[in-house]
Amino acid sequence: MFSGAQISLYPMSDDFVGIILGALVALDPYRADFRIETDDVSTLIVGPPERLFPAMRDLFVAAARSGAHCTFHATVSRGCPGEPDDPICTPLFDAGPAGALPDRIAKAREAVAAAGLTGQDVAAQFSLYPLGPVQHMDEIYGCIDFLKTSGVFDRSKNFCTKLRGDAGPLFATLSEAFLRFGGQQGHVAMDLTVSANSPTKV
Amino acid sequence: MFSGAQISLYPMSDDFVGIILGALVALDPYRADFRIETDDVSTLIVGPPERLFPAMRDLFVAAARSGAHCTFHATVSRGCPGEPDDPICTPLFDAGPAGALPDRIAKAREAVAAAGLTGQDVAAQFSLYPLGPVQHMDEIYGCIDFLKTSGVFDRSKNFCTKLRGDAGPLFATLSEAFLRFGGQQGHVAMDLTVSANSPTKV
Repeated sequence: MFSGAQISLYPMSDDFVGIILGALVALDPYRADFRIETDDVSTLIVGPPERLFPAMRDLFVAAARSGAHCTFHATVSRGCPGEPDDPICTPLFDAGPAGALPDRIAKAREAVAAAGLTGQDVAAQFSLYPLGPVQHMDEIYGCIDFLKTSGVFDRSKNFCTKLRGDAGPLFATLSEAFLRFGGQQGHVAMDLTVSANSPTKV
Repeated sequence: MFSGAQISLYPMSDDFVGIILGALVALDPYRADFRIETDDVSTLIVGPPERLFPAMRDLFVAAARSGAHCTFHATVSRGCPGEPDDPICTPLFDAGPAGALPDRIAKAREAVAAAGLTGQDVAAQFSLYPLGPVQHMDEIYGCIDFLKTSGVFDRSKNFCTKLRGDAGPLFATLSEAFLRFGGQQGHVAMDLTVSANSPTKV
């Protein structure tokens, strides 16, 4: 099952190149696991589905520690039938059969409760798209039930859900939403935006 | 059918607030058609589906004319079954029955050929998600056939398609992709990133 993300980091600063290059060091521990390709719009990371969100967390937290208002966008995907399979995407853990929604929600909560703190507060919003022959709104509503008890739920917005909190449990919540909802071997995509140090008070 | 977008503008400049506030004037001609709500992560625009991409084009071109490296992200949606219907979203034109893919591709090409130029070159990449009971990969492959002859096709990337060209035909291409593919009354979402003035050469 092919899995990966197109990611982009946006520091709202004249020194955006320096901040991006400085933050990229945070990806070094992940480079052996990933195929990485960059162009002028985004960087592709392809690798095990469980490693995607930890890598994105470390990259974004490194940029946010510059103090500049930074945002981050990712188009995350697993199981796209238009992509060739790739051994680098082999899941690290055998997830077993998908199970009923209440069981998946409970496991997702446990994983978030075990996540370490980073000391960096962030806001995020995302949309999850379970594609193909799956009850897509059932999966989305199940995921929203999980999000509301994740500890980082902020509010529902049109077209997306907004989270707020420490980047540790927040990215763990995103990872659980991506891995546990939608068909187990099915096509699932996520549209994710993360923000830190915004001057806009909410 | 509810339609709208969560949009965000990212000028990579110390003066990001000034550039954003300056560009917002470009939305003034659209304000009567839209419901608009802003928070620290994005701005919601809800209105007729045919007006969404012209509004986003004018906003982004205004920001790009600052000369700063600017990017823009939108989560665009129509027909989401989780959103209440809203009279403000009434389509301006009766699209009629959806028709066969080759007919839709031909109409989309005609609309792009009629688009005016803005004088602003941009790069963009996007993913289109036809959700629910629809042959989603057939619609996606049909849309890709259209994109390849749109005049602004750059290349296929993992998880998305990249466009490059004048913002006029490029945003017209995005609008046609959004309006003409996926179920006519169905749930369709788009994850869109646009970039201008990048220092990265490609």
